[in-house]
Amino acid sequence: MLSKAQNKYIRSLTHQKHRKDNKVFIAEGAKIAEEWLQSSWQLQYILGTEAWLAANKAAIARHPEAQTHAVTDDELNMLSLLPSPNQAMLIAHLQEPAPVPEINEWCIALDNIQDPGNMGTIIRIADWFGINHIICSEGCADAYNPKVVQSAMGGQLRVNIYEGGLDGFLTKNKLPVFAATLDGSNVYTIEKATAGVLVIGNESKGISPAVLQHATRKVMIPRRGGAESLNAGVSAGILCALLLPQ
Amino acid sequence: MLSKAQNKYIRSLTHQKHRKDNKVFIAEGAKIAEEWLQSSWQLQYILGTEAWLAANKAAIARHPEAQTHAVTDDELNMLSLLPSPNQAMLIAHLQEPAPVPEINEWCIALDNIQDPGNMGTIIRIADWFGINHIICSEGCADAYNPKVVQSAMGGQLRVNIYEGGLDGFLTKNKLPVFAATLDGSNVYTIEKATAGVLVIGNESKGISPAVLQHATRKVMIPRRGGAESLNAGVSAGILCALLLPQ
Repeated sequence: MLSKAQNKYIRSLTHQKHRKDNKVFIAEGAKIAEEWLQSSWQLQYILGTEAWLAANKAAIARHPEAQTHAVTDDELNMLSLLPSPNQAMLIAHLQEPAPVPEINEWCIALDNIQDPGNMGTIIRIADWFGINHIICSEGCADAYNPKVVQSAMGGQLRVNIYEGGLDGFLTKNKLPVFAATLDGSNVYTIEKATAGVLVIGNESKGISPAVLQHATRKVMIPRRGGAESLNAGVSAGILCALLLPQ
Repeated sequence: MLSKAQNKYIRSLTHQKHRKDNKVFIAEGAKIAEEWLQSSWQLQYILGTEAWLAANKAAIARHPEAQTHAVTDDELNMLSLLPSPNQAMLIAHLQEPAPVPEINEWCIALDNIQDPGNMGTIIRIADWFGINHIICSEGCADAYNPKVVQSAMGGQLRVNIYEGGLDGFLTKNKLPVFAATLDGSNVYTIEKATAGVLVIGNESKGISPAVLQHATRKVMIPRRGGAESLNAGVSAGILCALLLPQ
């Protein structure tokens, strides 16, 4: 059972401002909570139904830093940001932001990706393809927004995400830069590179001129139908599948 | 200005039951509304701000079947299902469902895709790759759900969507059936087919045994990182890019 003060604190985290002030984020639902529980990431609260806590006893024991509380379905309903809350909810500490390192392998750069669902989907794609670094421009969705955490399915545990600093990175880095644009070269005809930066731009405006000037190569997925464009997450997935070496 | 009765009717369409009973759906936002306006699809209501109506006068004139009304931003806010309503909202008539025809080209089959965002994304992918038919199992998200309409970006205008009838189609059809599974053959090593059915399964359960038994070939996108799976929409996009002939 949570105290009134704990309840109030956790509910306040609905607001981004309070999450930022407390340097925490929310990871919800049994599947996603278990991903974070398996890691050594620092947790503040572990909330779960009696059954879920019992089933995850061993993993929970590895997080003595966290306050663990059993909650009823009704309590979870009150605290949750999900339309259908599901067994568990973690409050986890944000890590200190690290500067973008020198990168010599395939990575993804995001220029003003605003939709949290797209942001999360792209983190999950990076996690699938073994891409270790995502560099974001200012103006991208917060990579620890609850919706991003939902759609990334634990990807933040394995992919390093740098929020801000895209311009500096593109100026300094020596990798070829592949920019996804609607007027680029046919991606099927592009020679595969052993390493590079894949740049994905804003959902409606595409890649900004400031970022585009760093492009070594503009690439596009050939269109055979009537759609004006592809979703940013889907484009990122297809380009990873076609540009990265097998 | 809308009458009280019109207002009440349009607000009732928030509920799927009322949309089904009235055989209509909602297409919202300037960009999407303009896609439908350009088509010969039968519309019931065209609602827009004065400025938007003026800018789309010619296209609106081609829809004498529709009732056109200017609405204020406040009225649009009251009627809209979007978090940020945007200039226009259409109520359009659903078309009579057609039986699945014999198909001799690449098509997509959806087995219990439940997330409206994924459903819309897959319609948009089909629209991009020039795929003309999507056959859905019972239990898929409604292809004219407002969120599906949002994410499909007008794809329903160009892609035929058959809701239900997947089992009968797979039993009768003579095309090779490629099922996306996590234990399939590496999609990069598969010989491209000139025509086929790409089957995408449920977000958490994958393809059901009843549908999987029709598979000629199970295919998977090789994983190099730590993610357990890819989003259903992203998988569909990557598989279209790798299986369809260029």
